[in-house]
Amino acid sequence: MAGSSFGTIFQISTWGESHGPALGVVVDGCPAGLPLCADDIQVYLNRRRPGQSGITTKRQEADEVELLSGLFEGRTTGTPISMMIRNTTQRSSDYGEIADCYRPGHADYTFDAKYGFRDYRGGGRSSGRETAGRVAGGAVAARLLQEFGIRVTAYTVSIGPVQIDRGRFDPQAILTTPTGMPDAEASAMAEAYLADCMKNCDSAGGVIECVIDGVPAGLGDPVFEKLDANLSKALMSIGAVKAVEVGDGTAVSSRQGSRNNDPFRMKDGKVTKTSNHAGGILGGISDGSSIILRAHVKPTPSIFSPQQTVNRQGEEIDLAIRGRHDPVIVPRAVVVVESMAALTVADALLLNAAARLDNLRKIYGR
Amino acid sequence: MAGSSFGTIFQISTWGESHGPALGVVVDGCPAGLPLCADDIQVYLNRRRPGQSGITTKRQEADEVELLSGLFEGRTTGTPISMMIRNTTQRSSDYGEIADCYRPGHADYTFDAKYGFRDYRGGGRSSGRETAGRVAGGAVAARLLQEFGIRVTAYTVSIGPVQIDRGRFDPQAILTTPTGMPDAEASAMAEAYLADCMKNCDSAGGVIECVIDGVPAGLGDPVFEKLDANLSKALMSIGAVKAVEVGDGTAVSSRQGSRNNDPFRMKDGKVTKTSNHAGGILGGISDGSSIILRAHVKPTPSIFSPQQTVNRQGEEIDLAIRGRHDPVIVPRAVVVVESMAALTVADALLLNAAARLDNLRKIYGR
Amino acid sequence: MAGSSFGTIFQISTWGESHGPALGVVVDGCPAGLPLCADDIQVYLNRRRPGQSGITTKRQEADEVELLSGLFEGRTTGTPISMMIRNTTQRSSDYGEIADCYRPGHADYTFDAKYGFRDYRGGGRSSGRETAGRVAGGAVAARLLQEFGIRVTAYTVSIGPVQIDRGRFDPQAILTTPTGMPDAEASAMAEAYLADCMKNCDSAGGVIECVIDGVPAGLGDPVFEKLDANLSKALMSIGAVKAVEVGDGTAVSSRQGSRNNDPFRMKDGKVTKTSNHAGGILGGISDGSSIILRAHVKPTPSIFSPQQTVNRQGEEIDLAIRGRHDPVIVPRAVVVVESMAALTVADALLLNAAARLDNLRKIYGR
Amino acid sequence: MAGSSFGTIFQISTWGESHGPALGVVVDGCPAGLPLCADDIQVYLNRRRPGQSGITTKRQEADEVELLSGLFEGRTTGTPISMMIRNTTQRSSDYGEIADCYRPGHADYTFDAKYGFRDYRGGGRSSGRETAGRVAGGAVAARLLQEFGIRVTAYTVSIGPVQIDRGRFDPQAILTTPTGMPDAEASAMAEAYLADCMKNCDSAGGVIECVIDGVPAGLGDPVFEKLDANLSKALMSIGAVKAVEVGDGTAVSSRQGSRNNDPFRMKDGKVTKTSNHAGGILGGISDGSSIILRAHVKPTPSIFSPQQTVNRQGEEIDLAIRGRHDPVIVPRAVVVVESMAALTVADALLLNAAARLDNLRKIYGR
Repeated sequence: MAGSSFGTIFQISTWGESHGPALGVVVDGCPAGLPLCADDIQVYLNRRRPGQSGITTKRQEADEVELLSGLFEGRTTGTPISMMIRNTTQRSSDYGEIADCYRPGHADYTFDAKYGFRDYRGGGRSSGRETAGRVAGGAVAARLLQEFGIRVTAYTVSIGPVQIDRGRFDPQAILTTPTGMPDAEASAMAEAYLADCMKNCDSAGGVIECVIDGVPAGLGDPVFEKLDANLSKALMSIGAVKAVEVGDGTAVSSRQGSRNNDPFRMKDGKVTKTSNHAGGILGGISDGSSIILRAHVKPTPSIFSPQQTVNRQGEEIDLAIRGRHDPVIVPRAVVVVESMAALTVADALLLNAAARLDNLRKIYGR
Repeated sequence: MAGSSFGTIFQISTWGESHGPALGVVVDGCPAGLPLCADDIQVYLNRRRPGQSGITTKRQEADEVELLSGLFEGRTTGTPISMMIRNTTQRSSDYGEIADCYRPGHADYTFDAKYGFRDYRGGGRSSGRETAGRVAGGAVAARLLQEFGIRVTAYTVSIGPVQIDRGRFDPQAILTTPTGMPDAEASAMAEAYLADCMKNCDSAGGVIECVIDGVPAGLGDPVFEKLDANLSKALMSIGAVKAVEVGDGTAVSSRQGSRNNDPFRMKDGKVTKTSNHAGGILGGISDGSSIILRAHVKPTPSIFSPQQTVNRQGEEIDLAIRGRHDPVIVPRAVVVVESMAALTVADALLLNAAARLDNLRKIYGR
Repeated sequence: MAGSSFGTIFQISTWGESHGPALGVVVDGCPAGLPLCADDIQVYLNRRRPGQSGITTKRQEADEVELLSGLFEGRTTGTPISMMIRNTTQRSSDYGEIADCYRPGHADYTFDAKYGFRDYRGGGRSSGRETAGRVAGGAVAARLLQEFGIRVTAYTVSIGPVQIDRGRFDPQAILTTPTGMPDAEASAMAEAYLADCMKNCDSAGGVIECVIDGVPAGLGDPVFEKLDANLSKALMSIGAVKAVEVGDGTAVSSRQGSRNNDPFRMKDGKVTKTSNHAGGILGGISDGSSIILRAHVKPTPSIFSPQQTVNRQGEEIDLAIRGRHDPVIVPRAVVVVESMAALTVADALLLNAAARLDNLRKIYGR
Repeated sequence: MAGSSFGTIFQISTWGESHGPALGVVVDGCPAGLPLCADDIQVYLNRRRPGQSGITTKRQEADEVELLSGLFEGRTTGTPISMMIRNTTQRSSDYGEIADCYRPGHADYTFDAKYGFRDYRGGGRSSGRETAGRVAGGAVAARLLQEFGIRVTAYTVSIGPVQIDRGRFDPQAILTTPTGMPDAEASAMAEAYLADCMKNCDSAGGVIECVIDGVPAGLGDPVFEKLDANLSKALMSIGAVKAVEVGDGTAVSSRQGSRNNDPFRMKDGKVTKTSNHAGGILGGISDGSSIILRAHVKPTPSIFSPQQTVNRQGEEIDLAIRGRHDPVIVPRAVVVVESMAALTVADALLLNAAARLDNLRKIYGR
């Protein structure tokens, strides 16, 4: 199958390689009438942009979005929104040496196994640069959700062994710390840890948490299209993610039911829960509480210390990777997590519109 | 959207409620020519069937499959395979009391929020009985995979605080212990733990692991349709699963790259890895190693101790659930995990057939 | 791909062969809260049922629908509606002789070419009986459309050379003439023509027209998912249809623009058209006028006169078909056309709910 | 739903408006390893390009394709192929006058009804320029089909009352006559007819035929995804098409079975048919004969004579359209028909790869 599209009604299709002329995304199915401008997109892309601190790759990319269709007089028209980002600093020369060998932890071998050959420059389609299209699409989704009071916020909760202290949680810090941690103190410790990693020609992983507030009860479907199933797919489709948790996640498996169930109570005339172990989703459908997700990100596979591997000719070799690489991808992946979550919820919001006769009567007036 | 279908080429559509006349599944897109009989299905359904030990619900269901279409002279014809399982022991009377109230940890409230009303008998469509259709479909997928040397095996690795000892791993035990654990000793401890839970009117969760052997390198897609993304969705779509791990899963986030990358080496003229932290998938595409997954299952929400909740009229009430419930759903969910994994891999196997010109030449002879 | 599902949100999946135990359909995505009972379905199935006049096959089938899921207290729950029709008068003995040969005009050869073998009993999945599932699903769609004042009406406009006289158009006659013609006089002539065909061991074709009234302006999409594109697919997917027209259809190609454009005028404060050459669709989107379609149906390929053909062994043979066959399939296909049209419009109605921000505000109250 | 994507495995997503900065298409699912260059695409786009004769619009567009992704060293990589065409001669000033009124025969009114407002410049997304993306995608599909000996050829068979003489059929003429007719004599008559139309401020329609040679028996599916059903949708999704015929099309409805069935015979050891009334498809599956389609195209709705219509304020007005318009769109639509047919067959070719166990064994070697 195609494989580069995500979503059913609110759908994105991304394209482009790390070292081709450009990358981009087509957003199809965005409702007509949404105010949208290039700045709404650029703000998101800037958060993913490399070269902004000592702990990201030194590759400099403007990542400037060009809006090519789907807007008229500042609003979406209901037709596809095409966005393109030119690649500006491709240095293919960096990659000559890896054309022929399989980097451990990367998709080089699996691409060759699947397609018979691959665009090896910078990882081609398997490069993290592919996520630029997701973020541009996610920005549109987030703009749509904003109209309905839904806010998606992701942040780093750990890098290597360094975890945030939830008692110091500061939402402002998410955008000001280079790590994306909502805790400046932990962030400083994480930076020190990363400096060490880099000195040792090594890399680090971490955990990103995502909270979605303001989701009305009733989004998602009961069987295969559970909201948490789709959110898991969304997050697990991000390159380096190896585990996804919803609500209390892995902790629930050793817990008893009396401790894990969230009691329902009334508050201001509305049904509410007095705890949120479930992470805002029951039976695949949102329950009106905050949706809580966590993505576990593996350490960057590109490390500068020598590694054992094989080449395309089937010879065992030693490989020392060179070039420009992030010692940890977590900080730049925060906005990717946010984007994938926003895309998933936007699609659920639209799909739910036709779930009951009542809704349709409101639209068609019968 | 529909929401009751899973897969793109190898696709299942399930239907049915806990207390309606029947449940079932339509398998569409299974290749023609596969030998298949009712027994292939029944063996799987029997593993999910309730009432087989002291640690599952006492509800007795024959769960006998009726094959209604898609077979001719013992082989699949390429047309839809329809399978039906009659419900035989519905006791709706058990559920009169919950018609009006929202059980904590269940989908009662979210169904009402989404659809305006619900079939409350036994949870209706949100009942665990819905998984019978998945298992019937999964049995067909497993039969197909068998032709290509691919084996899917799931088993319980923990229930509550009781974990298996991997040094005692005994594959035979998976089907003989009532817990689905590959370790009879741990299983006995888990049974004791569950007996305690039941005495205290409480319930337990656990962890299911799934290993997929024999998958050729090259299955899966590089962006949104990553094999691990689809496997995560598959597992997270099972009612009580709250976290999914691939390979070393959550452990990777605190690890360094040098320790997490799997070196490639040659073995018998083939590319292989000397470790498998990645769990058999790199960049969303299978790498030829075993695929390893873990699903974290929450404790059964139906507990007999009284709980705080609200009813449809918005009154706060105390609720003591009665009826027939599993103290832990993990043992019966093992085959559901296996089925969902088999369905996902079968679809990837079929989709990959058209991934490269070489493959098509083999079929169309040019 | 699967290939047995139709629709995106309002979706049906049909299954079953002519001579298997049963046929059926799963309707997924029907909005919750729609009043529905078995009679709503049976009325449609009865119109498709064979053996009701001298001009249909003598095969007697009760075609009684069994409703298996998706309903509670007389209303749809939003979950899949599964419906099954048992086959009761299979006489496989009739088909022994065709197991091995390719009937001209039938799918015997193409099924073998695609799948390697086939269920030859009564055509298996390629039998006209497959449409029973479509009609059951179409009945649900029609019931939904009824809530929004949308009515789908199909009727026969010609059989062989006999055409209706539009001056005598009598809607009552559609259900009372054995031909489905809204003109009793033409119907009598068509019956005489068919009697002649049968005497000569031959068969006839015809044309079915379908009018959809009450469709609000705005349904359908502008590019690939044009409403007329989907309606064409819907009708062309019915076994014997070889041409589809929208509005004035083939007549437009020899006409000039000044004669083909429909002028807009105001009527009762609403935009209306003073003619309807376009057949109710402009740019793929409904314009509020009646939607008009025509399907051209080929003569029944099963004829009793001897025909040249080949068998599976590649031998040239002469074949005289026996068994029970309709001399013309048009009368029984009328309700199939109606069903496919209803399914297409129901899906467009649901999809359109999310087309603009205004609609979503009405549902989510912002 | 999205609505701007076509195909299941071989899938295109088009985007762009007549007067925006650019138009384009993303081709996803093209198998890896196909030789492809910009020229393969440009040749197709040039056939659609305006301004090439006295009978097309005078708008001059270079329609130069820019290939942005999915290629490496002259071959497809299996990842999305993104192609963009800059709009260069937008003259939005031409459209100020129609911003506010509904042109008869156009989608102005229906877009407003659906989306609440529209990009009125040159018809926006409903412009015929949208087909540029289809043609770029179709060129890739045609290139793929060429590898398997499948050739798609479309041509004009009539314009207004002027029809080709099949006795004079000259395939060379298709690309050399300004009408796309394979008959220079008829083409000259058609040009004279069009000159008359233009003098009278009127426009013309016509018929396009499409022949697909070399299709192996076995492509397509038996129920909803019939090859002819998808081809009909493909052609009917082209703006001005109002009827589609397969094989003998509308002629079959008045014919008897004995005259319509195509006898099977053996030829060179292969099953063949001695006639082709069916147009190469039986039961929705290709039978190895040529596939034959006809699309009936309405006269260009933009005419210079005054027409009655209404404006957005609900006032009845007279409208005389100005600007640059084709007197007949048939000649430029020929390559669009060819493209849509190629896309449909390419998708069927890929989907069929997984239809039977035999095929999969050839790929996976068991």
